[in-house]
Amino acid sequence: MIRVTVWNEFEHEQVNEQIAAIYPEGIHGAIAGGIAQDGLSIRTATLDQPEHGLTEAVLDETDVLIWWGHRAHNKVSDDIVNRVHDRVLKGMGLIVLHSGHFSKIFKKLMGTSCDLKWREAGDKERIWVVDPAHPIAEGLGQYFEIEHEEMYGEHFDIPAPDELVFISWFEGGEVFRSGCTYHRGNGKVFYFRPGHETYPTYHNKDVLRVISNAVHWAAPRHGVRQTYGNAKPLEPIKGHQ
Amino acid sequence: MIRVTVWNEFEHEQVNEQIAAIYPEGIHGAIAGGIAQDGLSIRTATLDQPEHGLTEAVLDETDVLIWWGHRAHNKVSDDIVNRVHDRVLKGMGLIVLHSGHFSKIFKKLMGTSCDLKWREAGDKERIWVVDPAHPIAEGLGQYFEIEHEEMYGEHFDIPAPDELVFISWFEGGEVFRSGCTYHRGNGKVFYFRPGHETYPTYHNKDVLRVISNAVHWAAPRHGVRQTYGNAKPLEPIKGHQ
Amino acid sequence: MIRVTVWNEFEHEQVNEQIAAIYPEGIHGAIAGGIAQDGLSIRTATLDQPEHGLTEAVLDETDVLIWWGHRAHNKVSDDIVNRVHDRVLKGMGLIVLHSGHFSKIFKKLMGTSCDLKWREAGDKERIWVVDPAHPIAEGLGQYFEIEHEEMYGEHFDIPAPDELVFISWFEGGEVFRSGCTYHRGNGKVFYFRPGHETYPTYHNKDVLRVISNAVHWAAPRHGVRQTYGNAKPLEPIKGHQ
Amino acid sequence: MIRVTVWNEFEHEQVNEQIAAIYPEGIHGAIAGGIAQDGLSIRTATLDQPEHGLTEAVLDETDVLIWWGHRAHNKVSDDIVNRVHDRVLKGMGLIVLHSGHFSKIFKKLMGTSCDLKWREAGDKERIWVVDPAHPIAEGLGQYFEIEHEEMYGEHFDIPAPDELVFISWFEGGEVFRSGCTYHRGNGKVFYFRPGHETYPTYHNKDVLRVISNAVHWAAPRHGVRQTYGNAKPLEPIKGHQ
Repeated sequence: MIRVTVWNEFEHEQVNEQIAAIYPEGIHGAIAGGIAQDGLSIRTATLDQPEHGLTEAVLDETDVLIWWGHRAHNKVSDDIVNRVHDRVLKGMGLIVLHSGHFSKIFKKLMGTSCDLKWREAGDKERIWVVDPAHPIAEGLGQYFEIEHEEMYGEHFDIPAPDELVFISWFEGGEVFRSGCTYHRGNGKVFYFRPGHETYPTYHNKDVLRVISNAVHWAAPRHGVRQTYGNAKPLEPIKGHQ
Repeated sequence: MIRVTVWNEFEHEQVNEQIAAIYPEGIHGAIAGGIAQDGLSIRTATLDQPEHGLTEAVLDETDVLIWWGHRAHNKVSDDIVNRVHDRVLKGMGLIVLHSGHFSKIFKKLMGTSCDLKWREAGDKERIWVVDPAHPIAEGLGQYFEIEHEEMYGEHFDIPAPDELVFISWFEGGEVFRSGCTYHRGNGKVFYFRPGHETYPTYHNKDVLRVISNAVHWAAPRHGVRQTYGNAKPLEPIKGHQ
Repeated sequence: MIRVTVWNEFEHEQVNEQIAAIYPEGIHGAIAGGIAQDGLSIRTATLDQPEHGLTEAVLDETDVLIWWGHRAHNKVSDDIVNRVHDRVLKGMGLIVLHSGHFSKIFKKLMGTSCDLKWREAGDKERIWVVDPAHPIAEGLGQYFEIEHEEMYGEHFDIPAPDELVFISWFEGGEVFRSGCTYHRGNGKVFYFRPGHETYPTYHNKDVLRVISNAVHWAAPRHGVRQTYGNAKPLEPIKGHQ
Repeated sequence: MIRVTVWNEFEHEQVNEQIAAIYPEGIHGAIAGGIAQDGLSIRTATLDQPEHGLTEAVLDETDVLIWWGHRAHNKVSDDIVNRVHDRVLKGMGLIVLHSGHFSKIFKKLMGTSCDLKWREAGDKERIWVVDPAHPIAEGLGQYFEIEHEEMYGEHFDIPAPDELVFISWFEGGEVFRSGCTYHRGNGKVFYFRPGHETYPTYHNKDVLRVISNAVHWAAPRHGVRQTYGNAKPLEPIKGHQ
């Protein structure tokens, strides 16, 4: 059983009727419902909850955290960001979606500006699989399309991904590295581009398939507990004579 | 159910009593027995069988192929090498062990000489985990030791691995990239260093754990069937005016 | 002084008047002329010369080899391919252009099919810089365009590049990893996509800039001469007791 | 001309006579003197200077910044760290030495804990070249040795390097990824392990050779000025109907 927490800042849906109509249960609700399956235990958490819904107790029971944020990045407390960061390094999987590229947690993990080009003009997006051996691409065709989406264009200021799974083509002439994996400490991080709040992207079955695949990929293994700091020699050393 | 075929040239064990005493069922038998578990269906194949035991029918039923060879690399027919190569690109996992670094199939997949330094002098080997987030390191400690092994030393003439999971320390002063992953086409390849025929390495539980983990990692997903060649446009193009 | 040899199969230009009109000096002549600069010593070689113009003597004086081929890949002798392969592993730089993706030397170095989608329909191509820190991108803008080119589309069946410098957008809806670097042994390899024979691509100043940058990047350093094979211990070992 | 600034916290040398005897000009002085050559313009800067010697004016004239710190990481102001971070993303090269693994700037750029195992016991260190094609390995042998050094051992909690150039063997039984390259934004970062303050490591000609090579590798190119933010389409889009 993989325990998933879907986190959403959950603001747009409460102040914009059009967005609320697309996501009546919130973006978190749409994702949680859309990836529901045997073997996953899914809960949601939102910004307005105590500790943003990400208490130590909740994170103790979270194998993979999914993150959606946009207009409220700065309302996320640094303490919670540091807590999530620590959990990732200890093994928790993290899936960052779309505008989460500018979240505090993603920028902290990447070490770069995470800036990009963008345009809200309803571009067609076509997402190509460029690493067909990757488990996150399981069950997809050679590409899938989203009829209208916000455009994100290169240069995307991120570290070169450990693995590049998807590249997007946009109608308006841009490309984007849309599916990027990273190992950070004992944890795995996946960035996935689509999901602007004004489009029904999280009802798209291919998008949900990718998120579901990523959950399985990012789930921690019972693993190596690293120790750090002063270490006794494992072999005899001559040292200073 | 993951279907595994353990391939071994199976020569040393038939001509050297000391090696036969270590591996009475052959190296393939030791590995097949050592990784046996629910969820794996394991068979073996050897050089002296028709088509080296790697008929189209056998490969049709193989998700992951494990390869051990040393003195008989040149006895492996190019046709079978090409067949295995084609299967890897179509999605079959391949785990290449120890002296398999000089096998035809590994050199063909890597594109380099795959040469290295070596010494048969019973060095102690200590294998360190350098990517604790990797599923192939699942369940291991921070390192594991092999009391006596053949030394392999850098420079190891391979492409930079997609992911470097293990680095070996040798008593005699060398280091080695001992666990290396690669995606090739739809398939996954893992090179794992230990396993000289004169040592009981494939009875070591950590070594078997790594091979078992690698089988799970390398198993193909139901996946993207790529098409290649001439392609109609997906969008209108103006082309030559 | 970097010594460059521009190799071209030089067939299209001799049998097709339209192509000859674009490249009156041959594709090799256009490239050699286009990248001429202080600090480079440039010669050309073609398929119809003895040993395809790639004698040991010529390669002794070649720091970086540029390769263009298309319809005559199979006319290149395996001996010469093996010779070039050996030189790359020993440190010679290799720049493979466009349809050279299917050349024997590139396939041998990559270990994969190197297959892709293609279309000769005059698509507009826009080449985006995705690694602005890379020396091969020096002096370029954020992207550059080629008004009409042959389309190459993903999935491009290559190993994940060590560094991905460019991604192409095509008018007809595809994307492509158009600038890919690899280290192989002591040598460096760069694949660069543009350059179909029916277009004046090698007269484009940005394309020439990239090739010139790649020559500087790929030039060998006075470097580490690796040795391989049996090695004496550098430290005392206890070995077998 | 490449303009280099060697930064050192410069504390140990002022409070410890033994260290002062090894580095009478400070560690910064030893490095600046040791890599002096035609084509490099070198200055130094230290913690106790105004703005730690890293004013906007100094950074305007810095192509590559070399960083040594150990006991005073927390005395470096966040403002200066952010300034240096911004400069790296805009193209300034950064070379982080030894205990700089725990500096604020390195941790911020890496996004991980950067923790490791360590021991001050005078281990012999042998640094192996594992990427002989890399310009940072130019002119070295297959390995070089440091008679006594502080041990750093895996797991080193960093992102997988873009390129792994060196691996260290330690007498006491550990290994370490000792030469790691990263692209971050328009800038290049190199981490190089050796250099504990109580050893004359920065008088070692191989160590100085590596630092000098890294300066050349990390120097910025006249390059792509990326723009970010809202972007007009480059092609007609149909958008919302």
